[in-house]
Amino acid sequence: MELNPRIRQADIEHLEKLVGKERVSQGTSNRELHSHDESFHTPSLPDVVMWPHSTDEVSKIMKWAFEKKIPVTPWGAGSSLEGNPVPVERGIVLDFQEMDKILDIRQEDFQVDVQPGVIYKELNKKLGRYGLFFPPDPGASATIGGMIANNASGIRTVKYGATRDCILRLVVVLSDGNVFEIGTRARKSSSGYALCHLFTGSEGTLGIITEATLKLVGLPASVMAVLATFPTVKDATITVFHIMSSGLTPSAMEFLDAEVVKVLNRDRGLAMKEMPTLLMEFHGYSKRGLEEEMAFVESICQNNNCSLLDKGIGPEERNRLWEIRHLVVESIKRSHPGLLLLIMDVAVPLSRYSDMVTFIKEAVQNLTAYVFGHAGDGNIHVAIMDNPQDENRWARVKEANQKIIQKALEFEGTCTGEHGVGIGKRVFMDLEHGKSLEVMRRIKRLFDPHEIMNPGKIFP
Amino acid sequence: MELNPRIRQADIEHLEKLVGKERVSQGTSNRELHSHDESFHTPSLPDVVMWPHSTDEVSKIMKWAFEKKIPVTPWGAGSSLEGNPVPVERGIVLDFQEMDKILDIRQEDFQVDVQPGVIYKELNKKLGRYGLFFPPDPGASATIGGMIANNASGIRTVKYGATRDCILRLVVVLSDGNVFEIGTRARKSSSGYALCHLFTGSEGTLGIITEATLKLVGLPASVMAVLATFPTVKDATITVFHIMSSGLTPSAMEFLDAEVVKVLNRDRGLAMKEMPTLLMEFHGYSKRGLEEEMAFVESICQNNNCSLLDKGIGPEERNRLWEIRHLVVESIKRSHPGLLLLIMDVAVPLSRYSDMVTFIKEAVQNLTAYVFGHAGDGNIHVAIMDNPQDENRWARVKEANQKIIQKALEFEGTCTGEHGVGIGKRVFMDLEHGKSLEVMRRIKRLFDPHEIMNPGKIFP
Repeated sequence: MELNPRIRQADIEHLEKLVGKERVSQGTSNRELHSHDESFHTPSLPDVVMWPHSTDEVSKIMKWAFEKKIPVTPWGAGSSLEGNPVPVERGIVLDFQEMDKILDIRQEDFQVDVQPGVIYKELNKKLGRYGLFFPPDPGASATIGGMIANNASGIRTVKYGATRDCILRLVVVLSDGNVFEIGTRARKSSSGYALCHLFTGSEGTLGIITEATLKLVGLPASVMAVLATFPTVKDATITVFHIMSSGLTPSAMEFLDAEVVKVLNRDRGLAMKEMPTLLMEFHGYSKRGLEEEMAFVESICQNNNCSLLDKGIGPEERNRLWEIRHLVVESIKRSHPGLLLLIMDVAVPLSRYSDMVTFIKEAVQNLTAYVFGHAGDGNIHVAIMDNPQDENRWARVKEANQKIIQKALEFEGTCTGEHGVGIGKRVFMDLEHGKSLEVMRRIKRLFDPHEIMNPGKIFP
Repeated sequence: MELNPRIRQADIEHLEKLVGKERVSQGTSNRELHSHDESFHTPSLPDVVMWPHSTDEVSKIMKWAFEKKIPVTPWGAGSSLEGNPVPVERGIVLDFQEMDKILDIRQEDFQVDVQPGVIYKELNKKLGRYGLFFPPDPGASATIGGMIANNASGIRTVKYGATRDCILRLVVVLSDGNVFEIGTRARKSSSGYALCHLFTGSEGTLGIITEATLKLVGLPASVMAVLATFPTVKDATITVFHIMSSGLTPSAMEFLDAEVVKVLNRDRGLAMKEMPTLLMEFHGYSKRGLEEEMAFVESICQNNNCSLLDKGIGPEERNRLWEIRHLVVESIKRSHPGLLLLIMDVAVPLSRYSDMVTFIKEAVQNLTAYVFGHAGDGNIHVAIMDNPQDENRWARVKEANQKIIQKALEFEGTCTGEHGVGIGKRVFMDLEHGKSLEVMRRIKRLFDPHEIMNPGKIFP
């Protein structure tokens, strides 16, 4: 096996001494497993994979890596979509799956302390027993560490915010191995710089998160859901805007294009109307209150030519109506065996949502493409199934991706609503951030002078 | 008039050329007006006050100041409470009261673009016509620029977040005069580092904000308010916790100690029960829903020995019940002519709120002190009226302040929930942030190598 010229056998022995032989691997399968995420981005093998058990171990590894100038890339579940943890400059991958403890559920404070390897879905299962939940729902079976690194968000962000909005306190190991505890357990503070916000979403390029205190929300007493289909995309997306500005506060507001419904029908044997569809969810205290909200939602949908509306109150009804949402990506993938998935992820100001969806549908009309997204946040995903080996076709996919991102930026939006920059969005950073990318670069150099922290990411 | 040795008459003439003679003042009254905020902190006269009209002018001033290494301190309304904009190292004060335009109300995007001198209360008056509001309510007649600098918050933060949670995009002038536009108009983004969050709350020590895009919220369709009094502090503060964990989401949750009610009765000729009091507000869509919430709130209060409960639905009722809250600080001040106000501002995790209030009441029992605060956020204010000239008494005030902050930090809280660090909280920064203060220092040096940006603030 060829090693990174910077890592010699003596170095591996040193790393083995730091954490124990059994938690350092140069095995091919382990390296391959950590060479790619769930995206199509070109894999890159790390030289060595390690499974730290403590902040202290991470600190020792970083001290060594800093001295030797060896790249280090933290790893959660590998569920990212832009190559965010692919070790493009090899070096060490730190896999956090064995730092997966829920350290302290502080029910009365609406807080939980976790290690980065905790799986999001499992955390919420546990928190449910305490009447609490951690709202940013990325869909994928991500780890909390990965969510923090990417500032992940999802269907509930429209009401409860993204991951960055829910981080109170972090333990961070900097590139030189120094350990810092940042933030506070108070729910709000005006004391000093927003370090937690800065490290959240920095994709492992500024420091490594080894512990986090998350701000939780009480489970709602009641829940209401509405599924509505519309004759045109415009009718559906205008409805999004009308509901968002009506004084209602949906806890989820999802758009599914007709093609998405079609693939769900075919793959799952359903019989839904194959039309642009909105899925909505509302949280509240009182059932009577939710009934009134439901009637209002219904009237807004009707005013926008809604052709079918299904609705329900209570968790069973909610799950019945929402089940399809969780099947979308899987059904798309299963319907095109042999092809690879590229998920685009732009977000635009709400007033542009309609135009953006219309533009996208035209830009992808000759591709195998499915449009859906977190409409209440102006976030749109386009799932494209294609073959990266077919140069001609793949060039058209990339061209569509580029056109869509350019349009989103023209609309004063962002090239990534929630998947992060990783490898895939680097080329758009200049266009999105202009001069201010230089401010980010200065911060990067400050925290990572040797360019060893997940190198090759975010910056073009 | 003695000038800062670094500023000569030729320099003043240069500054006059940059913005026009009429917007540069060395007059005593202007300098005195900009030598202190609303706190007791020692005033310090700037050498010169300027009133910029544009980002470009601010940039030119900063380029010059950078070269000459002259301190520059931005100024909003001077309503801060920790000496945040007091020009302790003199130099230039940039008063933003003439950059007070609402640039663009983007109703469909729930956004507004403003200059930093816009007054918070006037902004919300204007936004109300569009069915929108900017939620962080600092109480004082602050400017938006001041609110961003301090990460201001207030009674509505418990539901809608602090200023930092509502900033989408900023135009920032760095110490060398370079201008950067940071952030995006998309409601959410995972594209690069959280620069808006970093500059928000940095108290003018990293850069000067000359434009901001604020995230707005739709005005609620219905509003409900409850005022409840309790036999003991413990009964009241336990009620806070029970309501916060009940699945209800109050839009405001304020605690007033019995002494506060007493001073209100005396000063305003009211006849309220002089007992620990909670003021609550709930926003919602449906009146019937709010009625059910009200019944639930009532039962929680009753379970905690509530001795009197007043309630109402609709804006008039809300205003009737809440009027007293807005009179608190003014009534306290008027009741003690000749004495100065020190407002403490700690925040602790919710589970510690009861203990914190109890501790505070004991710590201030020999002082003229009033305890109240944003209980739903764990934020507590203590208004102390005293005479800073009386060394003995003032030493006791300072001792109480120190004890209270130390206890808040022991409880894993913060030394300032919303007033910022300014001059007053600098000495507590080591205790609160420990080693991580060094990370803040590195960021400060990166952005302000000549230490000219509001020097003497935040860092001890």
